[in-house]
Amino acid sequence: MKSLVWNGKNIELKEREYPQIADPRDAIVKVTMSSICTSDLHIIKGFVPKATPGIVLGHEFVGEVVETGSGISNLKPGDRVSVNCETFCGECFFCKRGHINNCINGGWKLGCTIDGVQAEYVRVPYADTGLTKLPENVSYENALFVGDILASGYFGVELCEVKSGDTLAVIGAGPVGLSAMACAKIFKPEKVIAIDIDDTRLELALELGLADYALNPNNFDIESEIKLLTENRGADCVIEAAGAKTTFEMAWRIARANAIVALVAMYEEDQILPLPKMYGKNLVFKTGGVDAVHSKKLLQLISDGVINTDFLISKKFSFDEILKAYDFFEHKQDNCLKVAITY
Amino acid sequence: MKSLVWNGKNIELKEREYPQIADPRDAIVKVTMSSICTSDLHIIKGFVPKATPGIVLGHEFVGEVVETGSGISNLKPGDRVSVNCETFCGECFFCKRGHINNCINGGWKLGCTIDGVQAEYVRVPYADTGLTKLPENVSYENALFVGDILASGYFGVELCEVKSGDTLAVIGAGPVGLSAMACAKIFKPEKVIAIDIDDTRLELALELGLADYALNPNNFDIESEIKLLTENRGADCVIEAAGAKTTFEMAWRIARANAIVALVAMYEEDQILPLPKMYGKNLVFKTGGVDAVHSKKLLQLISDGVINTDFLISKKFSFDEILKAYDFFEHKQDNCLKVAITY
Repeated sequence: MKSLVWNGKNIELKEREYPQIADPRDAIVKVTMSSICTSDLHIIKGFVPKATPGIVLGHEFVGEVVETGSGISNLKPGDRVSVNCETFCGECFFCKRGHINNCINGGWKLGCTIDGVQAEYVRVPYADTGLTKLPENVSYENALFVGDILASGYFGVELCEVKSGDTLAVIGAGPVGLSAMACAKIFKPEKVIAIDIDDTRLELALELGLADYALNPNNFDIESEIKLLTENRGADCVIEAAGAKTTFEMAWRIARANAIVALVAMYEEDQILPLPKMYGKNLVFKTGGVDAVHSKKLLQLISDGVINTDFLISKKFSFDEILKAYDFFEHKQDNCLKVAITY
Repeated sequence: MKSLVWNGKNIELKEREYPQIADPRDAIVKVTMSSICTSDLHIIKGFVPKATPGIVLGHEFVGEVVETGSGISNLKPGDRVSVNCETFCGECFFCKRGHINNCINGGWKLGCTIDGVQAEYVRVPYADTGLTKLPENVSYENALFVGDILASGYFGVELCEVKSGDTLAVIGAGPVGLSAMACAKIFKPEKVIAIDIDDTRLELALELGLADYALNPNNFDIESEIKLLTENRGADCVIEAAGAKTTFEMAWRIARANAIVALVAMYEEDQILPLPKMYGKNLVFKTGGVDAVHSKKLLQLISDGVINTDFLISKKFSFDEILKAYDFFEHKQDNCLKVAITY
């Protein structure tokens, strides 16, 4: 079968053997649509030490179950499914507490330490926990981002404990930031403020009704603007989805006293925490990568028409064109948010 | 009346006018016992910009109500009371959410921006919220630390969300750290680990049954030791009550994935948050100064014999000897934890 392989330096389209059930808890899934994640680019650039050269890349996809191991009870061939970006056993210390991204037996495996989803078929370990059936009225396209990007946005909102009446500031209106805004609506914040230096993304956030206000730090002093919008207090909740030094500092500055700041970005540098300056402000910082435990709930919200992430697909490519798709995505051509790979 | 006044540089015992009711929500309290806080030393050293030269110092005390303003409904002359270190109105945006240390009308006032408690009498604003009546079987001595040190310890435990079965590590076995250990017991952690470079304090933590393990970083690699005690995971909850660069780093290193780290120390330097290194560890950092909202509950726990903080009083001084007491406390003579000033 055709597969996109990372050879340790570059990526190439290669022929590979069809995957086989290797453990009773495995399933083999036919990939019907996949996407490219910034983490895939991180692997190619060598930023992910645990990534294994020679693997098939990719962890964002939807597909159809074609075979299940003897230990699988929730799935059968023909089931349409989304996948969690993290493999998790569901039984260890961390899984039992809902912290699946620290699963002792799992973690980020697909397309990192084992063959991933940018291929025609993929073996998914712990398939009973990792795969979620799509409701009937949810298409593959509708569900493409459930297991990673949308989950990350929801995770940010959950970390922030967004409540009715709150002012939520989201720094970074990329795929995760926009997904967070889409999810935040469920909790009925009074004001959602999108912050980005890219006006196209800000306009999209406003157009789609995801944000009530859009602020570009090149045009505004963000701290002052947010104080104007919050009776001089600052934002009740802040999601930092951009990952730069300036945005980290912005996050704690625009937060009101006793606010929660969710740091869901992937930072490339250490950050400064000025504790003497913020003493008594009693901020809570929640750091981390997504715990994608809410796939069923997110799929239901999509099924109910509450959340829709189709807008994230800026362009579709056939699997044969995946190298072009990587280039398009990496260089944000035509203001690309995400691409969809069709099979 | 005799008062300890900070003149902007030094402290001196001076004669002052008796305080008067200035607002309907004031009460005048006769001080029966007070203590000295590290924050008092911070003022003297010039580290507290908002401190007003010429004020009477002190915010830790217990006493007897002698006069109440016309707006006071919960108190009457003769009531024995403890005081919250923070003045709070109980009605503003932050007070309504339980974040009294960010009260828009209050904050740290006593002994900082208005005359404090190291005097024979003190005017307490918002006395209905700031003063709490002592249960009959609780002595002034028993209650001396309820409004600040004990509250800070409880605050740390509350921030950490200590649960039954947890392993709690407390960095710093000073007054706040020891108080945190005393409060933690209420939530039945499986293991409490005290960490300090002062063996006398560690021995006290063990002797009093506040900690199950005591580790001195001069003798142990703390990270490895804690992994040995936690099936290689790390501590479920960490309270950082020491405030140094080394202890900040220790705090996130000894925390298991998805743990809460409560930063209740007063830091004199900015700290480094190595987000790339801790990506996926999903730690929560809760920063801040005490929200002393639980005085009634803490007094009940003292009354019930669950908590006892009498051990914190290393030595008593009469008010006439308060300059000596400052010296004794500042230089930790005889391994001093706290002093009590008697009137």
